[in-house]
Amino acid sequence: VNEVPAHIEELTEEESIQLLGYGSYVGHVGFVRDGRPVILPVNYLYEDGAVVFRTVEGTLLSALDGEAVAFEVDTNTPLERAGWSVLAHGRVERITDAAYLDRLRRGPLQSWAWKDANDWLRIKVESITGRRIRER
Amino acid sequence: VNEVPAHIEELTEEESIQLLGYGSYVGHVGFVRDGRPVILPVNYLYEDGAVVFRTVEGTLLSALDGEAVAFEVDTNTPLERAGWSVLAHGRVERITDAAYLDRLRRGPLQSWAWKDANDWLRIKVESITGRRIRER
Repeated sequence: VNEVPAHIEELTEEESIQLLGYGSYVGHVGFVRDGRPVILPVNYLYEDGAVVFRTVEGTLLSALDGEAVAFEVDTNTPLERAGWSVLAHGRVERITDAAYLDRLRRGPLQSWAWKDANDWLRIKVESITGRRIRER
Repeated sequence: VNEVPAHIEELTEEESIQLLGYGSYVGHVGFVRDGRPVILPVNYLYEDGAVVFRTVEGTLLSALDGEAVAFEVDTNTPLERAGWSVLAHGRVERITDAAYLDRLRRGPLQSWAWKDANDWLRIKVESITGRRIRER
């Protein structure tokens, strides 16, 4: 058994959520398609216990409605060999509430890929962990 | 059907391999554990058609020997809403060749997490795609 080194810090749920909410513009959605794992980067925001992202119909992301996925965010500073990462799990659901959609459309979240990304989904976070690797 | 916008560029296999090889210090391994998708960041290098990473016994990464996984790398520049990402698929195998291990140990790849990461694995890349999102 390998002891966890002192420069690796397990983050609390609160710290992990804080980093998920404000730590990055781009996260990674992990899921299974045709029997094999897939990772896709997405622009997102975190609000009210959920990761919100937008896409267009016909994409792999759009087809995730109802699926259990992973969502990972990380940042690193190679010069210090340091960084943090957060891993969340939850189920994807399409956002259909008109008032919420209206509010989201007026908000800051853009898809860098698609100009009119009118398919809004969210991952309701059920569990989250995180860790930080400090400079040795 | 949504047409792919002009500012999204599909990368060739050669371009994707170039970015995988030199574009980042940290990539993301995607796999399935206990029936659900997982994404873990790892330090890696790319050589001779394979993503090489190192870990210690007893970790989730160490247990991947023989599994088909995804490996994703991306970089982004939020100010331009631009970035690129590369997604590879392949099978993990433990590196056991003594001469190759000796060469790897003398090489530049370090695990930021573990000081003595003596379990070396590689993902033999079977397919790779990539795309670049340019500033609009």
